[in-house]
Amino acid sequence: MLQNGNYEALYSRIPCYIEFLENCSEEFISSAALAIALNYGEVQVRKDLAKVSNGGKPKIGYRVSSLLVDLKHYMRYELPVTAVIVGMGRLGEALNHYHGFEKLNLKIVAAFDINDQYLNLKDFKNICERENVSLGIITVPKESAQEIADLMVESNIKGIWNFSSTALNVPSDCMVKNENMANSLAILLKLIKDRAE
Amino acid sequence: MLQNGNYEALYSRIPCYIEFLENCSEEFISSAALAIALNYGEVQVRKDLAKVSNGGKPKIGYRVSSLLVDLKHYMRYELPVTAVIVGMGRLGEALNHYHGFEKLNLKIVAAFDINDQYLNLKDFKNICERENVSLGIITVPKESAQEIADLMVESNIKGIWNFSSTALNVPSDCMVKNENMANSLAILLKLIKDRAE
Repeated sequence: MLQNGNYEALYSRIPCYIEFLENCSEEFISSAALAIALNYGEVQVRKDLAKVSNGGKPKIGYRVSSLLVDLKHYMRYELPVTAVIVGMGRLGEALNHYHGFEKLNLKIVAAFDINDQYLNLKDFKNICERENVSLGIITVPKESAQEIADLMVESNIKGIWNFSSTALNVPSDCMVKNENMANSLAILLKLIKDRAE
Repeated sequence: MLQNGNYEALYSRIPCYIEFLENCSEEFISSAALAIALNYGEVQVRKDLAKVSNGGKPKIGYRVSSLLVDLKHYMRYELPVTAVIVGMGRLGEALNHYHGFEKLNLKIVAAFDINDQYLNLKDFKNICERENVSLGIITVPKESAQEIADLMVESNIKGIWNFSSTALNVPSDCMVKNENMANSLAILLKLIKDRAE
């Protein structure tokens, strides 16, 4: 569970602003226009942007190129992060080859699995220390997930992206973000079913 | 963008309640205990549960087994949904084999791709109508995503789970949930970087 609840909502909106603005052909954009485009509340967007950038001008809005720089800087996209993946089933493979992490300055430097064609877990700690790995991605079945999380904590990893559909116990200086594909889908299915009435 | 913003937050918490309670060995649970376990606010949890179940008793809380029934019924897990996937790269394959959709009563009935080993898109509309498909999963590159979304709308699909990292234009009676792995990861990376200061 992410500990930093107050900021999580803001941090989840900023990548959406960035994505929209990167495909925006206007020179300037207002909070109001951004709010409409993304289906957010206008007050929300105004507050978010004021937190991130001081480039807003009354009646004109923000220069798109400068706002993009400020948003990316706020999210610290410029700082590189190295990551490892453990569990090279279909999901691990998909993440390992995903195009879209480069823009976050993320580099996946090693892939581990019990399958011999990947790196062996006995070398995990050494590799993580040598490569200064700060993110661990867990795509193993839930039965093995805690053991892998323990190994990541021992190896000084500071954040875990957990796809194993199970809660992990880690010390408070390691952050866990749980990604549960089924829970995410459940929201959409509920809305479809409500509409079908 | 999901249209039903007010409910989305509630709908995203309920699957987490369900997941926790399914692994809970107690006979009864209080809103307070559930709030602590999931790191939610207690008032939030009390309101959520009151909306979903009338089985709560002062000082005792909810019977876990009954609360589970009420939560699943609220999310309509009992109604089956049939789905198709378009784009059988690594991510499409991973979703097609994902264990965890069964509990939502979701069945993926067909997988389409330009690669010959999958179904051909020329049969898309027929298959969707015959199988009464209501959910379409898009895992094609962003360049082809709108074209696939149009085909889904024509085929009477009511919800699209969109992994293509691009915004889709669809009529208002079709719901889109965008799933962007990089945006999701960006939140965790920001929190790790903040902590590393």
